[in-house]
Amino acid sequence: MSEKKRYFIENIWYAAAWEYEVAETENKLARTICETPLVFYKGKTDNYIALDDRCCHRAAPLSIGRVEGNCIRCMYHGMLYNENGQVVEIPGQVRVSKSLKVRSYPVVAKGGMIWIWMGDPELANENDIYDFPPLSDKVNWRGFDKGAYLHYDANWLLIVDNLADFSHVAFVHANTLGGSEAYAYSTQAENIQKGEDGFSMERWDRDSASPPFHAKVIPNEELGNTVDRANIIQMRLPGVFLMETLFTPVGWKEKDGRENVREYRNCQFMTPETRNTTHFFWNYLHNWEIDNSAISASLKESLLEGFMEDKVFIEGQQKLLERSPDFVPRSIAADEAFAHFRNKWGRRLRAEDEANPLAHKENKRTIL
Amino acid sequence: MSEKKRYFIENIWYAAAWEYEVAETENKLARTICETPLVFYKGKTDNYIALDDRCCHRAAPLSIGRVEGNCIRCMYHGMLYNENGQVVEIPGQVRVSKSLKVRSYPVVAKGGMIWIWMGDPELANENDIYDFPPLSDKVNWRGFDKGAYLHYDANWLLIVDNLADFSHVAFVHANTLGGSEAYAYSTQAENIQKGEDGFSMERWDRDSASPPFHAKVIPNEELGNTVDRANIIQMRLPGVFLMETLFTPVGWKEKDGRENVREYRNCQFMTPETRNTTHFFWNYLHNWEIDNSAISASLKESLLEGFMEDKVFIEGQQKLLERSPDFVPRSIAADEAFAHFRNKWGRRLRAEDEANPLAHKENKRTIL
Amino acid sequence: MSEKKRYFIENIWYAAAWEYEVAETENKLARTICETPLVFYKGKTDNYIALDDRCCHRAAPLSIGRVEGNCIRCMYHGMLYNENGQVVEIPGQVRVSKSLKVRSYPVVAKGGMIWIWMGDPELANENDIYDFPPLSDKVNWRGFDKGAYLHYDANWLLIVDNLADFSHVAFVHANTLGGSEAYAYSTQAENIQKGEDGFSMERWDRDSASPPFHAKVIPNEELGNTVDRANIIQMRLPGVFLMETLFTPVGWKEKDGRENVREYRNCQFMTPETRNTTHFFWNYLHNWEIDNSAISASLKESLLEGFMEDKVFIEGQQKLLERSPDFVPRSIAADEAFAHFRNKWGRRLRAEDEANPLAHKENKRTIL
Repeated sequence: MSEKKRYFIENIWYAAAWEYEVAETENKLARTICETPLVFYKGKTDNYIALDDRCCHRAAPLSIGRVEGNCIRCMYHGMLYNENGQVVEIPGQVRVSKSLKVRSYPVVAKGGMIWIWMGDPELANENDIYDFPPLSDKVNWRGFDKGAYLHYDANWLLIVDNLADFSHVAFVHANTLGGSEAYAYSTQAENIQKGEDGFSMERWDRDSASPPFHAKVIPNEELGNTVDRANIIQMRLPGVFLMETLFTPVGWKEKDGRENVREYRNCQFMTPETRNTTHFFWNYLHNWEIDNSAISASLKESLLEGFMEDKVFIEGQQKLLERSPDFVPRSIAADEAFAHFRNKWGRRLRAEDEANPLAHKENKRTIL
Repeated sequence: MSEKKRYFIENIWYAAAWEYEVAETENKLARTICETPLVFYKGKTDNYIALDDRCCHRAAPLSIGRVEGNCIRCMYHGMLYNENGQVVEIPGQVRVSKSLKVRSYPVVAKGGMIWIWMGDPELANENDIYDFPPLSDKVNWRGFDKGAYLHYDANWLLIVDNLADFSHVAFVHANTLGGSEAYAYSTQAENIQKGEDGFSMERWDRDSASPPFHAKVIPNEELGNTVDRANIIQMRLPGVFLMETLFTPVGWKEKDGRENVREYRNCQFMTPETRNTTHFFWNYLHNWEIDNSAISASLKESLLEGFMEDKVFIEGQQKLLERSPDFVPRSIAADEAFAHFRNKWGRRLRAEDEANPLAHKENKRTIL
Repeated sequence: MSEKKRYFIENIWYAAAWEYEVAETENKLARTICETPLVFYKGKTDNYIALDDRCCHRAAPLSIGRVEGNCIRCMYHGMLYNENGQVVEIPGQVRVSKSLKVRSYPVVAKGGMIWIWMGDPELANENDIYDFPPLSDKVNWRGFDKGAYLHYDANWLLIVDNLADFSHVAFVHANTLGGSEAYAYSTQAENIQKGEDGFSMERWDRDSASPPFHAKVIPNEELGNTVDRANIIQMRLPGVFLMETLFTPVGWKEKDGRENVREYRNCQFMTPETRNTTHFFWNYLHNWEIDNSAISASLKESLLEGFMEDKVFIEGQQKLLERSPDFVPRSIAADEAFAHFRNKWGRRLRAEDEANPLAHKENKRTIL
């Protein structure tokens, strides 16, 4: 009997899908989260339902089934599941055992994103879902109409790691999001606040030229000015990154007000698909000329270019780590915030593991 | 020393290849059956020979060798094997040790299909090969000139499972082979006969419209009629499915004679390539206007369309089962026949395993 | 705690890359040798440096970094490594711990090839690198301007095995490098010399027609002549093959002098990438009309055609061996030289294993 290793916290909300993703595929979507194959579908009151994507009878995928009100029908032998995962009809069979069911999961839509709770439903409280007001505020903020999605062939923590140390911007993104290698030498993480569920911090780059992604969207007359740039981030379990970016006149202070400040808001949600792959959701919003769609289009292109630069490193790390089981990473000073995050995550993982140890049941099936 | 799990019955005949498959590739064919790489070739009297496809010297594939009468020459260093798998010549070497050999397997051709016995040759009796007379009867029946082949990325039992419950026809094949979802509600398996080597059963759909695959090939004047449809199947170990399908006038009984009955015969042979992949051979025959090649062509297209519908489910199940080692399937009433088959197969598997336990020899090779 | 198996000798020089390969990719090259991902780069005095291709901080690939003199900068967070693998700069951090480093490996360029020592640097002696004078002798010999490279999906010993028994030339290369199947029957390995680091041997094919690869490049008036052909080979650990090929007048003896002899020199270096894949480097040189580039082009094409014929067998063997863990190869008389090589290699492998047993450290990482 081999021991099983736990890779994911369960009692927490994960970003699962943008609402439009479900809408665009006949109101149902197959997606694996934390190595659990799930089907998400939209019920009769535009409610969302998530069930194990595996009919209890013969493991046929429910996601190739048919949504019928709040139910979904397995289209192999026609078994009908309700929103609780209970089988309520078997064609040609009169009585249906109560024991025929699949697991259902709490799901909530917020800010265009569907969130799922992978653990004990009794503990799920939708007020714990992180709020990111700009995503819902169509008056002051403009992002992409459809939140963006990327798939990473890498463990989610490698992406958190990337975002937890902005010195990488200087080298990975010198010609896109960063602007210069000097950024790594002349700026520092400031005001690191550590909490039970993550950390926040700031990084100020003062009196510098605008980096390329910003220079592409501001009025020409501002291009010659140097600016102060602030990145103010929050990173929360289990992979929620929220960032305010300010471009201000040199020497600006909060008391000067924000009239002359150009602002961005960025959310990135990293959700494990498997231990080696990640769903990555993001949007990037700005607060001026919000009806000029060219700005948002340019930002999307710039950010995507930047993420592709990251992907080379992150997926490269993943490959090397898979091939190097004995590798132990060495710390540097800039790791402080990520080390805290990793530590808090590890403690919760171990606590869940102790409360509910994973046992490997021997597979007696001979069909596979 | 790890324990090995047995996945296949050995003392039984498996469908290995259509005869034309061997003929079309210079009279030799590489095919893996029950995780055993084999080479099939045609000898000097049109006899078939099957050997392990792995030269005993250095594991070069014999299937890229050269057939010489009843022998096959490994084209790496020229070693010549006879039909018993014995090396009879080593170029440049005078004496050849009797111990240089590969395993040979009993093979028999019947009805255009080559059958192989994977177990103890002493026990092989070619009379045990299932007979399907329509495959050889060119006077009354017409199928495809060349029996068809499909490859499944799924364990063979998932295909047996599919065929053992015709209620799936209602949902998977509503627009092709089935005709309507009502089929699942209004018809039942009847006359289930269980035996040591499998089961037979019938399913009658009375007074219904012809399903699409049949409607496409019958005369226009019959299209408005409802019919009785019978599917009378046999499923035999280790994966032999034979079916008679009758379309009769409503209320027809056997004593009425078969003049006004349109009949089909269908064979499907499921042979494990590996525990996760299957060779699937089939033909579909009809008994009227047999010289009208359009009928057979239409039936082939319809059936293939139907099998592709099945494949989505079956390969979907396979993927989910591979990812869900702890999944235990739950039974419904319609599983009776398959459960019997699975049970009989499991008993034979265990009996062979007890008689001849698999031992894992430690691999001392360092070359791999 | 699982036991680890050792697959590679470490205290030995391996052919790692042609020099031009490094030059063509901005003076740095990622290449895995003996399952160790490495970055090779060219320093400020055209010296070569090899480091583990994995930043000690977060396992980012150094090979997507930037060469700066004798240093290479990890372009993720900007850490700078010197030629000894020591971190000498961390942007934004004042002190750098001496413990931040990656492994560096002895490397030497010779005859256009970069050689690497995978074991204890104290034991590395560059005089132990096999010399192949024709590779450096531009006056008397002409090969390909750029040494050739092939990648094999096979363990390196399967290629050594191939080269250690020239009877395969008769069957695998009858129409390319060999000339006839008779070669396997009428010629024998002669003068086999066995040593601690490998073997040498000869094979003479007397009074035969020129094989196709040779016939394509000699003057027309020689085509009607039969010749004596000698292949005089050396095979050295850990995968160095050197061959002299002579085409002489029939009955020629060394005392007759080499004026009427057409000669080739061939080197083939087999370096394990992983236990299942191999880097294969080669060149093929001739000693007449060396300014006629058509000869070298024809030879390259002929040899490549021959290697492709080998590859089918070698990669076929690999696949069968991976699927046949219990297979034990059977010996024939022609295996003598390879068996000796295999034995000497196995003894060195075990000796290194006893001196320095591989321990599997438990991976406590949860990020992968």
